[in-house]
Amino acid sequence: MTQYKNPVPTVDIIIQLKDRGIVLIERKNSPYGWAIPGGYVDYGESLEQAAIREALEETSLKVELLGQFHTYSDPDRDSRQHNISTVFIGRAEGEPKASSDAKNLGVFKEENLPVLVFDHSKILEDYFQTMKSNPLWCPNVSVNF
Amino acid sequence: MTQYKNPVPTVDIIIQLKDRGIVLIERKNSPYGWAIPGGYVDYGESLEQAAIREALEETSLKVELLGQFHTYSDPDRDSRQHNISTVFIGRAEGEPKASSDAKNLGVFKEENLPVLVFDHSKILEDYFQTMKSNPLWCPNVSVNF
Repeated sequence: MTQYKNPVPTVDIIIQLKDRGIVLIERKNSPYGWAIPGGYVDYGESLEQAAIREALEETSLKVELLGQFHTYSDPDRDSRQHNISTVFIGRAEGEPKASSDAKNLGVFKEENLPVLVFDHSKILEDYFQTMKSNPLWCPNVSVNF
Repeated sequence: MTQYKNPVPTVDIIIQLKDRGIVLIERKNSPYGWAIPGGYVDYGESLEQAAIREALEETSLKVELLGQFHTYSDPDRDSRQHNISTVFIGRAEGEPKASSDAKNLGVFKEENLPVLVFDHSKILEDYFQTMKSNPLWCPNVSVNF
């Protein structure tokens, strides 16, 4: 039987940590480097469920999702295979702790972002730009985190 | 080799036909009924490319994409399998003509929508609601089509 090949759905979550900044992880697996927390969506799982699960697995934070941001699908955005990522914005409180695919994590402001893998620098650029230019985009999302 | 099973990415396109309404198709294949034009995303193809291609294949219209609307991923939204759909809003001019998976098509206003398959009634409800309540959502999208 011929299996039709499809791009693979993933999620990434921009986690606003109250009064501190956004949470990024340092990947345990290749490609190594800093990234927005996220991962593959399971069959039978909604994107929202996957986002909450991946955020918890990698940062130990219980994230409240504020909304979908954008779905990124450029076939070259991930050198491993054609992964499509739906990016969410969420918020959390408490102390994040790296686990699962994350060997380390940090909390960053726009001014001190690290170099990121995949297309994650572009995603954060879009995010900060959107929060500044169109704060009405999502009524629950504030740029003043 | 064990193949990990993933949800499958699709696109749907809400096509605003100038001065007339939105374009819906009647499906040639099961499940039969009216639907928003759309289909599966090819490996190596962006969501935007897939949206333009599927709109052309099913309605013969060259669609200008105005923006991404939302990505729908409830595992029960499509009874065939777990399909995730990124919904785009686009606009077009000229006379649509059904082809490919569409055996028929029509142009509809909010007041006279047909019953739709999948979760497409909900998608259009979200669409009309968003256009009314938050026209700033996407600066290029107008409710006055």
